[in-house]
Amino acid sequence: MTATRTTPSNAPGSTSLGLGPRAFRAGGGDDMISVGIVGATGYAGGELVRLLLNHPRVKLAGLYGRNRDNEPIGASHPHLGATGLVVDKTIPKADAIFTALPHGVAAGMAAEIVAGGSALLDVGPDFRLHDPADYPAWYKFDHPAPDLLAGAVYGLPELHRAEMVAAAERATTIIGLPGCYPTATILTLAPLARAGLIADLAVDAKSGVSGAGREPRQDLLFSEVNESVKAYGLFNHRHTAEMEQELGQQGARGALGSKDANPGVATVDFLPHLIPMTRGILASCHVRTTRPVTQAELDALYDEAYRDEPFVQVVADPPATKHVSGSNLCRVCVKVDPRSGRVLAIGVIDNLVKGAAGQAVQALNVLFGLPETAGLEGYPIAP
Amino acid sequence: MTATRTTPSNAPGSTSLGLGPRAFRAGGGDDMISVGIVGATGYAGGELVRLLLNHPRVKLAGLYGRNRDNEPIGASHPHLGATGLVVDKTIPKADAIFTALPHGVAAGMAAEIVAGGSALLDVGPDFRLHDPADYPAWYKFDHPAPDLLAGAVYGLPELHRAEMVAAAERATTIIGLPGCYPTATILTLAPLARAGLIADLAVDAKSGVSGAGREPRQDLLFSEVNESVKAYGLFNHRHTAEMEQELGQQGARGALGSKDANPGVATVDFLPHLIPMTRGILASCHVRTTRPVTQAELDALYDEAYRDEPFVQVVADPPATKHVSGSNLCRVCVKVDPRSGRVLAIGVIDNLVKGAAGQAVQALNVLFGLPETAGLEGYPIAP
Amino acid sequence: MTATRTTPSNAPGSTSLGLGPRAFRAGGGDDMISVGIVGATGYAGGELVRLLLNHPRVKLAGLYGRNRDNEPIGASHPHLGATGLVVDKTIPKADAIFTALPHGVAAGMAAEIVAGGSALLDVGPDFRLHDPADYPAWYKFDHPAPDLLAGAVYGLPELHRAEMVAAAERATTIIGLPGCYPTATILTLAPLARAGLIADLAVDAKSGVSGAGREPRQDLLFSEVNESVKAYGLFNHRHTAEMEQELGQQGARGALGSKDANPGVATVDFLPHLIPMTRGILASCHVRTTRPVTQAELDALYDEAYRDEPFVQVVADPPATKHVSGSNLCRVCVKVDPRSGRVLAIGVIDNLVKGAAGQAVQALNVLFGLPETAGLEGYPIAP
Amino acid sequence: MTATRTTPSNAPGSTSLGLGPRAFRAGGGDDMISVGIVGATGYAGGELVRLLLNHPRVKLAGLYGRNRDNEPIGASHPHLGATGLVVDKTIPKADAIFTALPHGVAAGMAAEIVAGGSALLDVGPDFRLHDPADYPAWYKFDHPAPDLLAGAVYGLPELHRAEMVAAAERATTIIGLPGCYPTATILTLAPLARAGLIADLAVDAKSGVSGAGREPRQDLLFSEVNESVKAYGLFNHRHTAEMEQELGQQGARGALGSKDANPGVATVDFLPHLIPMTRGILASCHVRTTRPVTQAELDALYDEAYRDEPFVQVVADPPATKHVSGSNLCRVCVKVDPRSGRVLAIGVIDNLVKGAAGQAVQALNVLFGLPETAGLEGYPIAP
Repeated sequence: MTATRTTPSNAPGSTSLGLGPRAFRAGGGDDMISVGIVGATGYAGGELVRLLLNHPRVKLAGLYGRNRDNEPIGASHPHLGATGLVVDKTIPKADAIFTALPHGVAAGMAAEIVAGGSALLDVGPDFRLHDPADYPAWYKFDHPAPDLLAGAVYGLPELHRAEMVAAAERATTIIGLPGCYPTATILTLAPLARAGLIADLAVDAKSGVSGAGREPRQDLLFSEVNESVKAYGLFNHRHTAEMEQELGQQGARGALGSKDANPGVATVDFLPHLIPMTRGILASCHVRTTRPVTQAELDALYDEAYRDEPFVQVVADPPATKHVSGSNLCRVCVKVDPRSGRVLAIGVIDNLVKGAAGQAVQALNVLFGLPETAGLEGYPIAP
Repeated sequence: MTATRTTPSNAPGSTSLGLGPRAFRAGGGDDMISVGIVGATGYAGGELVRLLLNHPRVKLAGLYGRNRDNEPIGASHPHLGATGLVVDKTIPKADAIFTALPHGVAAGMAAEIVAGGSALLDVGPDFRLHDPADYPAWYKFDHPAPDLLAGAVYGLPELHRAEMVAAAERATTIIGLPGCYPTATILTLAPLARAGLIADLAVDAKSGVSGAGREPRQDLLFSEVNESVKAYGLFNHRHTAEMEQELGQQGARGALGSKDANPGVATVDFLPHLIPMTRGILASCHVRTTRPVTQAELDALYDEAYRDEPFVQVVADPPATKHVSGSNLCRVCVKVDPRSGRVLAIGVIDNLVKGAAGQAVQALNVLFGLPETAGLEGYPIAP
Repeated sequence: MTATRTTPSNAPGSTSLGLGPRAFRAGGGDDMISVGIVGATGYAGGELVRLLLNHPRVKLAGLYGRNRDNEPIGASHPHLGATGLVVDKTIPKADAIFTALPHGVAAGMAAEIVAGGSALLDVGPDFRLHDPADYPAWYKFDHPAPDLLAGAVYGLPELHRAEMVAAAERATTIIGLPGCYPTATILTLAPLARAGLIADLAVDAKSGVSGAGREPRQDLLFSEVNESVKAYGLFNHRHTAEMEQELGQQGARGALGSKDANPGVATVDFLPHLIPMTRGILASCHVRTTRPVTQAELDALYDEAYRDEPFVQVVADPPATKHVSGSNLCRVCVKVDPRSGRVLAIGVIDNLVKGAAGQAVQALNVLFGLPETAGLEGYPIAP
Repeated sequence: MTATRTTPSNAPGSTSLGLGPRAFRAGGGDDMISVGIVGATGYAGGELVRLLLNHPRVKLAGLYGRNRDNEPIGASHPHLGATGLVVDKTIPKADAIFTALPHGVAAGMAAEIVAGGSALLDVGPDFRLHDPADYPAWYKFDHPAPDLLAGAVYGLPELHRAEMVAAAERATTIIGLPGCYPTATILTLAPLARAGLIADLAVDAKSGVSGAGREPRQDLLFSEVNESVKAYGLFNHRHTAEMEQELGQQGARGALGSKDANPGVATVDFLPHLIPMTRGILASCHVRTTRPVTQAELDALYDEAYRDEPFVQVVADPPATKHVSGSNLCRVCVKVDPRSGRVLAIGVIDNLVKGAAGQAVQALNVLFGLPETAGLEGYPIAP
């Protein structure tokens, strides 16, 4: 397979307008977008490489890995070993920089990255929460760049597309990409939240193990995880803050409710589980509604919300994570219980694609004015 | 490994008092208990054989399989192939008969089985629900033996031990053994239900695939289940009826609530999931309480309920199914959310042991006056 | 995701030259190739759909499934449910027809399929073995179309590219696509066979479960396969015949050996195993050589054989099946044991891609004069 | 479940004869055997605890873990958390000490352990190889106690029972317990080796992940291992030395061959694979025989070798690892290929039981004169 080697974005022939989405959009948008990945050796980084290598408008400007010195990518990602790419300890110059790093690290590097115009798309949590006080509360660190945080946009295109485009036109563009659990949960519940229908909410989520990252830990060894399931992060999983921020905001926008009138969303009862599979998240959302609803009403609500979305599919039967594996799709199913009137809303994603790398590429497409599906046309892979 | 061959229970030297627990108890109880298994070729049947072969007071009187003609057990259970046991199409005569059959079948055979005094312990659902009307409603068949059903006891010793002992003294002894999901759920919630604390309840359960039985089905093939998770049985899983019966009854007994005062339990929001593992059930029970509770109160409630139970362990950290795999244990963890006041109660069992065969052996021990742990001393096996 | 609906190949504007590769090549080759899939509901059929939907030069002309009546594809392949495709009981008219059927069925349909010029690419075994006598011997059926078999080409492009191109120019084009085990094994061993180096050979292969197909069988249930490994098909696996045919033929061509001089290949000691994963085959080939070899000699041999092949990668470290999962790649590693002089050659493929659907698309590309990688550019997906 | 707490072996009432098998045998053998486990927090250590807790003649004298200070066992083995046992940094005094440690560590502690008469049963490799020169060659360390090594017995009872009993009568008793791969391989091949039938041999083995231990390593993470298979340890796996030692020795004893006349065994072509399951080893042994053999001859050879062995079962169909999971059984199947005359011998064990802890308990039983099956009566657990 022919290797796609990295090429510096300042090669002869590239424009002199500078880096980043504003320059790119001003330049007419026919060029390739140069992209760098900071934190390329983890799972999200590997998926970014896989997706971007097949992206028709992207060239890889460089892959950064801490303490790596021109190391062939095959050392960390054997499946990409024949691409000829290398991982290095230099932060690449590029129109867009993806950061996939432990929490707190991207925030510290952000100012340097965006100084030259590059857009920063953070796959980690450093620019997701709008309130700086949420960082010490949930992540146990003080945010080092609250000014940059103030300008960051929560990068879920299905909810914040217009804000993302606006950010692309600014001198500094920072996107805080959603977490994997919040992506599944928010897309599954946004129509209900917006309609003010959520009176009480339990989100019971199941994740594949890749969501826990690639650092060696005894509790993530195959022999520990296989043939077992457990809940974890009771009452304090960090993604809870993100769900409450976004669902609360949707609720505030809705015709029927506001955050104040919507105490069910004010605190989300979120319980994640680790299950013995590599990829995928399924979020089962148990909703007690603010008023009785019919199935027809739910169907209309979800159809309206998602009929034009390229990556969200509303389905009639409960979806399995395998139905979206390897793709950027989110499938959602919503049903009212005829006995009790409760509503079940179930959503599935591939945690490494729509929950991480794919969503990042989708956000890149939004920022740079490309079709949102560019580079993300792959169908799910099953079995 | 020396085979334990089946021996007829009417061999020379055995008592002439007749079969069944009443005769056994009258006889002083030093004999071996003769046991037959009807439906020996499925997963629950195999586990019964495994457990009973090591039971110090049981001799196997015969294994029944539809259309099997003296077939070596290795044909259906290769792991037991060296035991020398055979499966045949004759219903054995024995002090106790375990039935592990598709729903509706055991009910049709029950009268014949109990006629001679044998105790009937049904691993299937035919004697679990007290109200005959629940069978057409949930199982789509009319119960063929409502008179026998009226005398059946729900065989969860932790809740109904005294009733089981009373049934053992009657001429006809029928035990409807609990389903796998209800076992995990009821043990996890009984102390809360009894205390009238459940105002609203969502039970989000995850099961290994063996719970779906051994009949070939495309959706249970390895390639379909592996690397995937899905919900199923939305709003109509048959085990829901059982949970509502038992939790409602516990609630009615409690000091703080009754079934009428406890609408949360009146309809259980039960959502089961199939996850890619063979054994184990984890039930995550999301509870909105009828009044604020403290962790200390919960701890005291559960300690009191289970401190003397040999098979229920209350633990401080969320349990994994692997912590009980292969054993008859149920582990329960209950926590109050300091932010919201909601209560999470999480329980795990091995669905084929405490959720099926082990529970059946425990019930046998209760009926025949043996130590409840006889034959069930094995520790969980991990990793 | 926008659906790619099936369009009949005889839509206005398409050429009147007729169907099939000869007409297509004569027509200049700018059109889209119309493709039908017969046997679309199995695993290989699903993969064909997935790959062809993203193929830049293919339009799907129809999907055939026995007894299906305009059934949405989502009924059999939920992951493809949003494509709008349907499965029907009409054999489509198209430039190329892929058959993915139980053995013996495609052979019976072949005459009808190729009558109008369509190329037949059989994913099953009906056109793999050159000697008609091998069918009763290995597959237990008499080949119904020995005349067509005589003109069929074994569709492994890396070995038979020129013959495939020649077949495309004939009025009747039939390709017998290699089996999954033979693909992995033959690519792993061809350079050694061609060099006459194989004196004795044991092929110990491990396959994911999808290779066994999608028909419900008890021994393929998740609970049977998970946490277990077993050998099967001792001494009589049907793929053995294919390996012996191809490796023998390679040996006969080599400078150093002939089939007669190469008794090690005359009978391959082939032992397949079923392991608890869905996709992937790893073939470990234990070779006793006809003369001492050095590592440098092996490296040169394999480099020469595969340096220009787009889908075969020779690697220095033992490959894992996950390194090629989801892609059309084969990775091969060959090493000489410094202690014993034996040679180990290890190959991995994705059994459903390079071992079935991807290889079929690669063959299609060869027949129709397209770049061999068209539609197969996807990188492996990991983890 | 009632906890079995550790009790010091020198409690009032215990004999004053001293520790170890010689004293125990002299004392009449009615006492309980006091046992300590050094290295209790790994997988083999956990299995030892599980098995010994149910052993009718053993009391646990103490569990040692490096740097553990009276730590509840549940911290390392949650499934055993209710036993009340603790892990501590004091080496226990006991009749028998099991060591389950990284290579080189037990050898350094051995002198201290055996000084008081305790038998040392090393689950690790430090006392397996008779030739001290093999340690630097295969394990890269110089054996620190060659004098003790000289007196050690290779603890595979099926081959060395008499030597083990003899060692129990000596003042110093050291047993080097076999590795997991060698146990499966040697039991599978010993009858052939002894008969001088092995002319050439490839051992292709597949192991569950628990065999790689419990230290956190990236390559053992669930997401790396799941849905993948790979070979490793090409030409230099340490267990090769053990197989060559034992098979060579068997060959030398045989009527038909000697080590010199048996070059096939002189170097074993051993290739291990890591497959995505937790427990189990399957060894596929491809044998070219020194002369033609019949199936009847093979059957007689294996029946004679194993008919009286409690833990080795010769079976007619290829065994799966699940057939022995959780038990101390080894199942072996041997077949001659009617086409080629080659012999396939396939063996399965549970790597943590017969391949580690169970074998250790079996050896303990041999040393202390107990029935060999004591504490090992558990049947395999399936599915």
